[in-house]
Amino acid sequence: MIPARIIERKRNGEVLTPSELEAFLLGYLDEDVQEPQMAAFLMAVYFRGLDPRELDTLVDVMLHSGGVLDAHGIGGPVVDKHSTGGVGDKVSLPLAPLAAALGLVVPMISGRGLGHTGGTRDKLESIPGFRTDLTTTEVMRVLERVGCVIAGQTEQVAPLDRRLYALRDITGTVSSIPLISASIMSKKLAEGLDGLVLDVKVGEGAFIPEEARALELARTMTGIGVRRGVRTRALLTAMDRPLGRAIGNALEVVESVECLRGEGPPDLRELVLELGAEMLGVGGVTEDLGEARARAEAALDSGAALERFRRMVQEQGGDPGLVDDPSRLPKASESAPFRAERAGFVSRVTPSVLGMAIIEMGGGRRKLGDPVDPSVGFMLHVEPGQRIERGETLATVHASDRAGLEVGLKALSAAVQIVESREARAALLPLVSARVEPELDALGAQGGRERDTVLGQRS
Amino acid sequence: MIPARIIERKRNGEVLTPSELEAFLLGYLDEDVQEPQMAAFLMAVYFRGLDPRELDTLVDVMLHSGGVLDAHGIGGPVVDKHSTGGVGDKVSLPLAPLAAALGLVVPMISGRGLGHTGGTRDKLESIPGFRTDLTTTEVMRVLERVGCVIAGQTEQVAPLDRRLYALRDITGTVSSIPLISASIMSKKLAEGLDGLVLDVKVGEGAFIPEEARALELARTMTGIGVRRGVRTRALLTAMDRPLGRAIGNALEVVESVECLRGEGPPDLRELVLELGAEMLGVGGVTEDLGEARARAEAALDSGAALERFRRMVQEQGGDPGLVDDPSRLPKASESAPFRAERAGFVSRVTPSVLGMAIIEMGGGRRKLGDPVDPSVGFMLHVEPGQRIERGETLATVHASDRAGLEVGLKALSAAVQIVESREARAALLPLVSARVEPELDALGAQGGRERDTVLGQRS
Repeated sequence: MIPARIIERKRNGEVLTPSELEAFLLGYLDEDVQEPQMAAFLMAVYFRGLDPRELDTLVDVMLHSGGVLDAHGIGGPVVDKHSTGGVGDKVSLPLAPLAAALGLVVPMISGRGLGHTGGTRDKLESIPGFRTDLTTTEVMRVLERVGCVIAGQTEQVAPLDRRLYALRDITGTVSSIPLISASIMSKKLAEGLDGLVLDVKVGEGAFIPEEARALELARTMTGIGVRRGVRTRALLTAMDRPLGRAIGNALEVVESVECLRGEGPPDLRELVLELGAEMLGVGGVTEDLGEARARAEAALDSGAALERFRRMVQEQGGDPGLVDDPSRLPKASESAPFRAERAGFVSRVTPSVLGMAIIEMGGGRRKLGDPVDPSVGFMLHVEPGQRIERGETLATVHASDRAGLEVGLKALSAAVQIVESREARAALLPLVSARVEPELDALGAQGGRERDTVLGQRS
Repeated sequence: MIPARIIERKRNGEVLTPSELEAFLLGYLDEDVQEPQMAAFLMAVYFRGLDPRELDTLVDVMLHSGGVLDAHGIGGPVVDKHSTGGVGDKVSLPLAPLAAALGLVVPMISGRGLGHTGGTRDKLESIPGFRTDLTTTEVMRVLERVGCVIAGQTEQVAPLDRRLYALRDITGTVSSIPLISASIMSKKLAEGLDGLVLDVKVGEGAFIPEEARALELARTMTGIGVRRGVRTRALLTAMDRPLGRAIGNALEVVESVECLRGEGPPDLRELVLELGAEMLGVGGVTEDLGEARARAEAALDSGAALERFRRMVQEQGGDPGLVDDPSRLPKASESAPFRAERAGFVSRVTPSVLGMAIIEMGGGRRKLGDPVDPSVGFMLHVEPGQRIERGETLATVHASDRAGLEVGLKALSAAVQIVESREARAALLPLVSARVEPELDALGAQGGRERDTVLGQRS
């Protein structure tokens, strides 16, 4: 194996054989392939892509560079959901306990916030005492007792992915669909899943905003999943506006608890129910989405899901009392209303502007390891499309000082777009715009036929 | 300057500002930009190219990372020729002394053979005692005494180019036209030239075989030269067959001396005269190519060029007696004739096959630093297009042992293609197929208009 020849072949758009690519990747782990060679290879992949067999080889080598969880002894289908990330996306918090309440085993390994999108671990860690840095033994113990766990990636999971991600981060090769897909799927497959539901965000606040590329990402990831024997589906969901009304770690925990009580914003509830129903589907519990959805609604409205959440918080070291008394969560010392300067209609609420402002207000990270202030954020009181009056409070900023308030108010001015007439409002994406479901039975070398359903048009 | 952002901009096809690119390159010299970052950048350049301003910045930073020669005190226009390399390309050996005999100062910094193409330094070092590893002081002394010198690159010349070349070599980013152009031109400009003639090879045995890409290389390099104030022209010349009849270091020295005597193969003489005339042109001696050519012919036929060669050999430590007695050169212990199996016409002589065979016979390098046997090689007795009889000796193999002879004979069987009829012969490229001459007076930011002349069609 001559590394430069392999790089050249990929550069020329040729397809590497599994043994060639495996030798190159294992060579990197053994330091026979040097960092600059891998960097050049990743950039060649950025331009040339990877075909399904190459993708599978990359995922396999990443996956087997570390340990794989096995939660099948617990007794339910092992299922997870992964989101590509967005602003106000707190879905995992109600969804993991909901799925557990429905009989699924949910070993949800999550990340921290980076860039303008928030991270599930950061949100949960705003609960006093809550720990996400669990060992594999602790992960299994929480799973056994609760049926779900939300924890960080251990050092043992896909170390090759970790090295490649660090390299991509400094070499301008992050935003490659095959590399993103392989990175996500190697970590998810390390959870030893039977089924996986992917929430691929689309729109301004998504990591990949364009619908066509988001669909490509969804197809690439579901393809990897099914070829690896994991029932995998993806929903394309709206991130052209924030999800729900709360943005900011502690504020989002409060909203998640509301959702678990059967309350909270309708878009959050809707997405949690849709994803919950899909999880029952990929878990093999029921293929009837209507029935699955009804079961999910019942678990949410009965308090069964909330009860699982309470137990998960307790098992992971957090204060379960917050479920009944949200004032136990960190609270920002300052707050200020953001008022409408004129009457009209809310046309847009631009997610990335609010996400970036939270970083500046101390509630997010510029780089890995930065401390995070869980209390800061925004509560939106209106949503896109809605009619408003002059002077109406459209949002509240929560900050740790006056400077933070200023940042927040300025961000709201930039993010919230008001138009005069109903007709002038921007078109919005449907909450769920497409569903990607490769057929598990009909998989050839190319990953099988896919059944994409486009579920809605811009409303 | 955030290296990953600069890599991303280049990756996206944006044009970097001179200060951005300079900061990135200087950052690399200062180790603020890491090796994997430069590797990813080079791969992005492979796919996206460099615009003329970016090219100039790269060349300038490479050039000024080291020292620049100044041979203007010697008294003639300082002019050089550079070839992109081929099989049997010994043009530099007769051309440098010819140009010196015509009043030019020729500080020819040359490379070693790598891959299937030979290197001027290796050819000259087959002369007993001949040294090419000269210090700058020695280069200047030979130039003062002879008017020409052929030596290797010193450590002081363009160290950034040296680092980038080593990195490109291991990362599959060698064959990028802007990177090749910048690398060649930074080294050539470090000779402090008034004029430069580029011999860009085209055809099977060339580094870049395709005519269109070779033309692009010629335009890119001449553009860099003229924008840097150096009169630069390029000829596209044929490398779809070997140049001359001798292939192999010592054999090529013998043929070069024949050329300097006004003898030797006509294609070698023709190319030496054409390039010599162009050197007089870019040196500002005469713009009349007919007159320049006549002067070059006279210097070759009068023995003036041979006399310069003899002095250069002497000044660089070699045995000048070889000029009168070629038997002083290393001679292979074994030789064997390669005979025609049937009558017909020679259709092709494939250069790379013979070049690669010489490596296997010990006369070339697999990697830098390998020792070279100067005596091995091929003498061709026929040329493409020629009629031959059954049993006729088409070539002679020179090798150091029986195994080498076998390799050589096998290579000739593969390289020499015989067809039955005159009509079935392959089309050959004209010796000089195009001439690229950017206008020095009309240079805008885009490098000025170019005057390309297509000089011939496939014969």
